[in-house]
Formats: sequence, C-alpha cells, structure tokens
Amino acid sequence: MLKNPATKYRPFTPVNLPDRAWPSRTITRAPIWMSTDLRDGNQALFEPMDAQRKMRMFKTLVAIGFKEIEVAFPSASQTDFNFVRELIEGGHIPDDVTIEVLTQARDDLIERTFESLRGVPRAIVHLYNATAPEFRKWVFGLDRDGVKTLAQNAARTIKRFADAATDTHFTLQYSPETFTGTELDFAKEVCDAVFDIWQPTPRHKAIVNLPATVEIGTPNFYADQIEWMHRNLARRDSLILSVHPHNDRGTAVAAAELAVMAGADRIEGCLFGNGERTGNVDLVTLALNLYTQGVDPGLDFSNINEVARTAEECTQLPIHPRHPYVGDLVFTAFSGSHQDAIKKGFAMQKPDAIWEMPYLPVDPNDLGRTYDSIIRVNSQSGKGGIAYLLEQSYGVVLPRRLQVDFSAAVQRLTDDSGHEVTPQQIFTLFEQEYIHSQAPLHYVGHSLSERGEREHIQLTVDIHGKRTVVSGEGNGPLDALMHALRTPVRIQHYEERALTQGADARAIAIAEMAGTDVVGNAFGVGIDANLVTASIRAVISGINRAYARCDDDAQQRFFDAVLREADHAAV
Amino acid sequence: MLKNPATKYRPFTPVNLPDRAWPSRTITRAPIWMSTDLRDGNQALFEPMDAQRKMRMFKTLVAIGFKEIEVAFPSASQTDFNFVRELIEGGHIPDDVTIEVLTQARDDLIERTFESLRGVPRAIVHLYNATAPEFRKWVFGLDRDGVKTLAQNAARTIKRFADAATDTHFTLQYSPETFTGTELDFAKEVCDAVFDIWQPTPRHKAIVNLPATVEIGTPNFYADQIEWMHRNLARRDSLILSVHPHNDRGTAVAAAELAVMAGADRIEGCLFGNGERTGNVDLVTLALNLYTQGVDPGLDFSNINEVARTAEECTQLPIHPRHPYVGDLVFTAFSGSHQDAIKKGFAMQKPDAIWEMPYLPVDPNDLGRTYDSIIRVNSQSGKGGIAYLLEQSYGVVLPRRLQVDFSAAVQRLTDDSGHEVTPQQIFTLFEQEYIHSQAPLHYVGHSLSERGEREHIQLTVDIHGKRTVVSGEGNGPLDALMHALRTPVRIQHYEERALTQGADARAIAIAEMAGTDVVGNAFGVGIDANLVTASIRAVISGINRAYARCDDDAQQRFFDAVLREADHAAV
Repeated sequence: MLKNPATKYRPFTPVNLPDRAWPSRTITRAPIWMSTDLRDGNQALFEPMDAQRKMRMFKTLVAIGFKEIEVAFPSASQTDFNFVRELIEGGHIPDDVTIEVLTQARDDLIERTFESLRGVPRAIVHLYNATAPEFRKWVFGLDRDGVKTLAQNAARTIKRFADAATDTHFTLQYSPETFTGTELDFAKEVCDAVFDIWQPTPRHKAIVNLPATVEIGTPNFYADQIEWMHRNLARRDSLILSVHPHNDRGTAVAAAELAVMAGADRIEGCLFGNGERTGNVDLVTLALNLYTQGVDPGLDFSNINEVARTAEECTQLPIHPRHPYVGDLVFTAFSGSHQDAIKKGFAMQKPDAIWEMPYLPVDPNDLGRTYDSIIRVNSQSGKGGIAYLLEQSYGVVLPRRLQVDFSAAVQRLTDDSGHEVTPQQIFTLFEQEYIHSQAPLHYVGHSLSERGEREHIQLTVDIHGKRTVVSGEGNGPLDALMHALRTPVRIQHYEERALTQGADARAIAIAEMAGTDVVGNAFGVGIDANLVTASIRAVISGINRAYARCDDDAQQRFFDAVLREADHAAV
Repeated sequence: MLKNPATKYRPFTPVNLPDRAWPSRTITRAPIWMSTDLRDGNQALFEPMDAQRKMRMFKTLVAIGFKEIEVAFPSASQTDFNFVRELIEGGHIPDDVTIEVLTQARDDLIERTFESLRGVPRAIVHLYNATAPEFRKWVFGLDRDGVKTLAQNAARTIKRFADAATDTHFTLQYSPETFTGTELDFAKEVCDAVFDIWQPTPRHKAIVNLPATVEIGTPNFYADQIEWMHRNLARRDSLILSVHPHNDRGTAVAAAELAVMAGADRIEGCLFGNGERTGNVDLVTLALNLYTQGVDPGLDFSNINEVARTAEECTQLPIHPRHPYVGDLVFTAFSGSHQDAIKKGFAMQKPDAIWEMPYLPVDPNDLGRTYDSIIRVNSQSGKGGIAYLLEQSYGVVLPRRLQVDFSAAVQRLTDDSGHEVTPQQIFTLFEQEYIHSQAPLHYVGHSLSERGEREHIQLTVDIHGKRTVVSGEGNGPLDALMHALRTPVRIQHYEERALTQGADARAIAIAEMAGTDVVGNAFGVGIDANLVTASIRAVISGINRAYARCDDDAQQRFFDAVLREADHAAV
C-alpha cells in the first residue's frame, strides 16, 4: 500500500491574492517563444546530441520560426563551447535570431561563457543560481543574504564583461532557480538586487525568468506566483517576464497558459516536451493551442510530421501516439458514432467557413496531416499504423528505417486509390515491393558445403531467363553469397525472425543493402521455411532493388560481372 | 506556412463569472474516482481487449482500489455484453465495487443494456446524448427542444427499467455530450429535465457527468463552466457532480484539478491517460498529484511498475519515458549539478521527516521505484535503460520479453553490489546468463547437408565431457536440430540480426524456448560469424537454461534420450 502521505509530504502554500486578475483574462496574442531544446532538452538525453544533430536541430528550430534559441551551456562542456563557436564562425545564425547561453554564478564560468560568444552580433546571457530553501539548506549551507550576495557578485561580473564587449548587443537574463519553491518575497528581493546592478531600461530590457524547475502545485498556484511577481517586481517596465515550466505533475502546458494570463511575456520550453525528468513545457502544444483559438502563434507547424521526425531522430526519444496534435492516434476515431459524426461534419463543412467539426478541434490538413477513420497509412503519420497492422496480422516486424521506406510505397498506393487500405492490401504491397523483386537476379536455388572453417556456396540464378551458376566462399552463408556475386553493393544490416512458433516456422529475413555512387541503398526481404534460404532471398531481393534504381549501364556492368563469375565457376 | 487562424478558428466564449471561488481553493481530499479503461479507453485501441485482457484489467483496477468501474458499452457489441455477463455470473465483482455501463438514448439499446445487468446487486447506468450545437446541426438536425425531448424520453425508459428491477440497486448517470461545447443554460436545462424524471434524493443521488469530450479552451474555462453548473443546477444536493476531461490541448490533468476546486465530486478517466485521440485524463497522475500534497488518494500505486506493465500489455500502447511518476526517465538526473544536489539531499533526508528533496517531488521508493543518478538498471523501471545500453554499446537489441527476463538477473547483481552497473558489466552478465550456458549440452560443432528438399544435420556435443554425435533432418537447420535432439522443449520464437555492418559481421541469435510441465521456459542466445551457427548455439543455450531449472531426474531423462539418439545416429 502507499504510505500515509500526510506525515511525509507538505502541500504548497497558496499565494494570498484574492484580487487576482488572471482568471478573467484570455490570451489574444502569442508570447515570445524561447526554445531550450539544445540546452535543457539536450542535457536530459540518454546520449546528448553530437555536433551534427545539434546543427540539424538548430536549423529546424530556425525554420519553425524561433527567434530566441538557447544553444548551449558553454562553460559546462567543450562540445557545447565548440558548438557556439561553430554557429558564430560558420555564419549559421540568421539576422533575426538571437542565441542564448546559460551560465552558473561563478566568475571563471562567466568568463568562459563570454569567451564562447566572441564576435556574435547579438546574444542573451542567462545567469541562474539556486534560491529555494532546500537548496540553501542542503546544497549551499547559506542563508538568504549569502545567496543574494552570490547572485549580486555574479551579476556584477556579467555586467563587466557585457559592457566591455563593443561588437555584441547583449541581453541579460536572470533565473532564481526553483522559483516555485522560493518564498515570493525573497525571489523578488534577489531579482530586484540583480536588476539594480544590470540597470535595464524600457528600451533595453533584461529578462527575468521564473522557472518551475520542479512543478510543485496546481497550475493556478504558478499563475498566482507569476501575477504576484508581475505586480511587485521593481522596474517591471524594463523587464521581460519569462516562465520556464517543467511537467512533474503533468500540468506544464496549463501552467504556462495561466502564467501568460497572469502577466508573463515569454515562455521557455522544448519541442514535444523534451527535457529533464518529465520534460520542459511542450512548445508545440502551446503554439497550436493558440492556433485553434484563432491566434497566430508565429511558429510554423504546417508540416508537423517532419518536425516530429527530426525531433525523434535528434533526441532518440519517441513521441507518444496520443501526444496532442502530433501523435499517430490523435486524428483517428475508432468509435463508430464518432466516425459517423465526423463524416457528417466533413460533408457539411464549407471550405472558407469557421471550423466546426465534431471531435476534431483542429483541421488535420493545417498540420499536413489527414483524418484517419480507422488506422490508415496514407501519410507519414501512419508509420505506426503500418507497423502495427503488419505485426498483428502477419507477424512481420519492420525495423524503423524500413517503416520509413515502406511508408513511401504505401503513400503512393493510397494517393492513387484515395481510399483506406486493408492489412491484406498492405501485406500484398509489402510482398510486391520487397519479396518479389526478381530482376535482374531471379533466385533458383543454392547449396552450401563446409570446407574446414569456411562455408562454400553454389548459387543458381536466372538473369533475364538465362540460367547461371556462381560460387563463392566466406566465413558464413552470407559472406560466401556476397563473394559469389562480386557486387560493390554491401550488406549494411540484416535481421531475421520466426514468423510463427516452432522450429519448422517460416522465417522472415530483412536485409538492408548499402549501394555505391551509382547504385542506390535498398531493403530486401525473404521468407522461407529455411532460415538460410530466407536470408539469401532477402539479400538477392535487396540487390535487385538497389540496381532497379540505377541506369541500364550500371545494370549491364553488374550482369557482366556475375556472368564472368559464372564462367569462372564453371571452370 | 500555417494558415492565418483568425478566419478559421473561433475562440471559446469565456464564462461570465467574476466572483468565481475556485481559484482560492485547494484540494484537501480525494474525489470519487471512476475508471473507464474498459469502456472509453478500450474503444480507443487499435485492437480492443479480448475477454482475457479485459478481465486482467478489471482485476488490476480492483486491486488498485477503484470502487466505480465502467466496464462496457453492452448494447454496442456482443463482446461487451458477454463481458458484463461474465463479471456477474462468475462472481468477479467485489462487494464494495460498483460496475457502470454506458448506453445511448434509444429504447432498444436501453433495454439491451438492462438485460446485460440482470442479477447484479449494484450498477450505474450511464445515459448520454449529444447536446452541443454542432451535433444538433450536423448530426441530428434537431433544435434545442428536440434534443431535450430525446433526452427526456430516454430518461423515462431508463427509470421504468430501473424501477422494475427488484434485485438491483441502480444509480443513474446522465452526460450531456460535449458539455464543453454546449451553451451553459442549455446544458443546465437538459440536465434539470432529466433529473426531474429521475427524482434523485440526497440519500439516493444521481450522477451528473459533464464531459470535456473535446478539450476546447484553457483549463480555467472548464473550471468556470463547472462552477457555474455547480451553482446553478437544480437539486444540487441530490447530485454527484462528475467530470470527464479529454486531453486535446494537453491540459486534461489541470482541467480535472481545477474542476474539483470548482465543485466537482468525481472524476472519470483512465490509467496513464489512455482513451480516444489524445486520451482521457490520466487518473494515475491525478492520484499521485494528491499524494505529493499530503492527501491520501485512496488508490494504491505502491508498485507502479506492475500497473504500468499490465496497462501496456492490455492496451498494446507504450508509456512515454517522460510520463509523470511512471516514465523510465522521471527519476533520472543527467545533469551533474542535479545529481550533486540530489546526492546531498539524500544524505540529509531523515527517514521520518517531511520529504524535502531537490528535483524529486516524490520519493521514488513510495512507488516501488528507485532514483537513477545515471541510466541504471537495478529495478524494473530500468528495463529501458538496460535495453538502451546494450543496444548503444554492443548493438544487442533485446526483445521485450527478454528485457523482462534479463532485468531480474541485473536486479540480483545490483542488489548484491548495491552500486551502479556499467554497460560492460551488463554485457558480461548477459553473456554469462544466456550465451555461456554449456551444461548439460556443450556445443562442439555441426555439419549440414542437403538431401533433396530436406536439410540434414550432424551435431557434435559434449555431455558432461562425453563427446556425442547426433543427427536429424528437417525443412531447415533448426527443424533438423530439434529433430536430432528429441527434446520435448520447443522453439517458441527466434530472431537474429547482424551485430555490426557487412556480410562478414557477427550475428546474434535469440531463441525463446517453451518448456513442458517439468522443464521451464527459457531464452538462449548465440553469437557467431555464421548465422546458422549463431542460431544453433542460441537454441542449445536455451535448452540448457530450460533444463537448468528442473530437477535431476528430468535432466537425466534428457541425457538418456540424447544418448539413445547418439547410438541410433552411430548405427
């Protein structure tokens, strides 16, 4: 049983703000968005992004329309430092985008941070230090004044470096960490003290960022905290009030929305809610929540599948099938009565009229998606559906890259027919695409024999009807096969599994072939009761598919090579 | 680019409730929980649960502590109807649990619904009909009065059946569908009309359920709607006010919490937020949000991993690694400064004191989990971590059931050492467990030859040092191998893949063996440059591991059989 929580957990202390104004407000324009995918998001990954993935994420964020991007914690790692230098020296930062970097409140780290930024036209330097009581007690062993002095000293150092840089326009940002857990009067005191040093003005504002580093109460509590700060901070007209919610209680999106109603100007978060533990607030959901209220979010998610794929590849984390707006299942209705209502809604909906659709709060088309009345596979969003149907109905498990490859073929089918496809149609298409590729090589048979530690293969194939026998040797059947075929195409990866139970089950083998300059990459699949035969069929199918995409000359050279080998084998 | 939304989407119309009371309230006791995993959750699955999975889910919900469970939509499917009968006739409903069933507002469906409930001591009958304008317009073609009359007629039919049943205590529930999209005055009008017919009393209450079938505004808007209904509904003292939020805008948890502050007594939702499209509200997060505020939720998630595994298996949907409280990553800190603060916090935390831990809003121990300072694998929660480390570091991809199997071995290792384990230690353990199992059979070598369509194997093994040769025949190498070994253990599944790139890469084969009454199930793994040798090694390892768990007699009978076969082969 769960323990009695009353003696172990302390509830949050509500803010005394009976005249709060936020509950009567609505959001009518987008806040300033700040993406921290490359900083807070990145440091929360199993394996942080390498330079290549970081650059890919940066370019995606720019393409979406982010104007402020926290790119690194340069004093914490050489990789991060180098990435900032690469962005600046490579000229990758568009004129309307400002990069931001994070630093702890230590002089040497601040110096290193400014060093990373040398030569950038604009940047935001983001200083943070812990202010919450459990940090003061457990981590620093400092009282309120000690923590305030620490922040002031760091603020002075930052001001010194910022003033000294003549070729960069710096915006300064301060975060009292675990703001949600800090006494409000103390949070105000420390922030005011920092901005007394920085002296922002209405024309050259500083940023005060109030992070829910850990979400500790209902979202209205965060809104109350933000409204209290909004009303009580000194120099409010010289500050951009920023929020940074995490999702420990599953209410980060709500907390951000209510905080904007309470006076916040800016939101820090990540795509699809990546970030430490339960994640940072999801900026995609926030932006599209505005969009469905008729408010232009200023971020472009008109091809949300492409953004999702990039995010999944950069973070190596999946997006859940029920994730708002983007999950594989969110535009799918399983219930017959829902399907019926949506069908009627689509029939009545006029192209330029206000969107009024039962069960669908947004037009899937606006996001580059489609409505799926059942699991359909006519867009990238259906990859999960294809995979599911093939596995459930036929025991075929597609590796991820093959899912992507095959979804293109399914797309062509559904584009042509304009209709739903059944599991059987999908499997037939799968067979046509990957299993029945019999040109230029048509597999006839093979025999294997052992020569000491080596495996010898004699392979019989037809080339455009001409029976040909080739042979080769290697440390296993596939090595011998590739030796026999003398093609520059290589086996990149293969996998194989039983399609059903038992030793006599049929096996399905999947081979991923890597081509050359003239011959493409391709997948091949083989199914056979004999696991060796299945894998040989898969490789031959993959070679056929690789050559199918190249010109006649390359194909002819390949035939010639195989036929030469055949003569050789006959000797 | 995204279209200009201003001409396409209409914002929600705020409720005029300047004296709203909910923003000053906090939640100090748990609401009534109603699980609709078996109804709303189930109808939103790729493949709805079969009878066996439904029963497993029902028993899990009861064990967690749910007292109200919506089990079916009996008039919509025979499977659902039969499941209700099975629950009642099999005596599966504990005395303190009330089942609930859903029905549409049609006389024949209502009759069928009551038929399904015959003989049950207690039940909730849940009537719904669409009331929102887009449904009135698009679906029914009815005006307000027409829709109200439809609800009244159905309410009368239900009352007639409920009054006629003498051996069942019925509680009646009504939902105006897409309550969030219905004009408040009309929602009240229809509800009042239904309850005028049902005549609930403070001692025998009815349930008024106000679903956010589609989430269309910020969560404070839903709270305002609920507070308005709470204040304005007739017979409020005879009603249980229930909410049913969906998660289209990612704020269902917040909407439910604010709704309880606004006067709701009861929440309908699903485990881990399963349900149509973006899901129903997540009851696990709601319950644990209360727990971390010191409020007893009345639901037991002290072994949250087990609940998660059951839910994943019943729904065939994953739980996201960042899902609050339960995701693989939520008790993991990657950042060095976070790890440091948590380490200090643990050192200072006294066992019976109030929980004050940097970055961790709940003690992972309370949920049967542990804190992972990096990806560690010392509990079920680390299955994702094991899988990740083996794949990243060694190219080994574990099938899901093997992940579960192996995590038990890792648990023993970490329990013994009490420390983190490295990827190398994990791989060494993996080899010890699955690859190096060489007793009773020690693989020495094999040779394969083809006899027409058949494959012939000659297998050399040592049995406790005694060299033995056996032979067999089949339609592939594994079939021949199993024939040669004459064991009652069967191959349940196998899969194989390249560990690295290229035709000469080493292959890893994984065999799942199904035992008998006396011989257990077991996994075996083989690695070899030759894919056939890898799979033979995997099967032999699996057989060894299956026999390792049974008694000496069974082992002896197996040796005898193999040796008899060896004599036979020698003839």
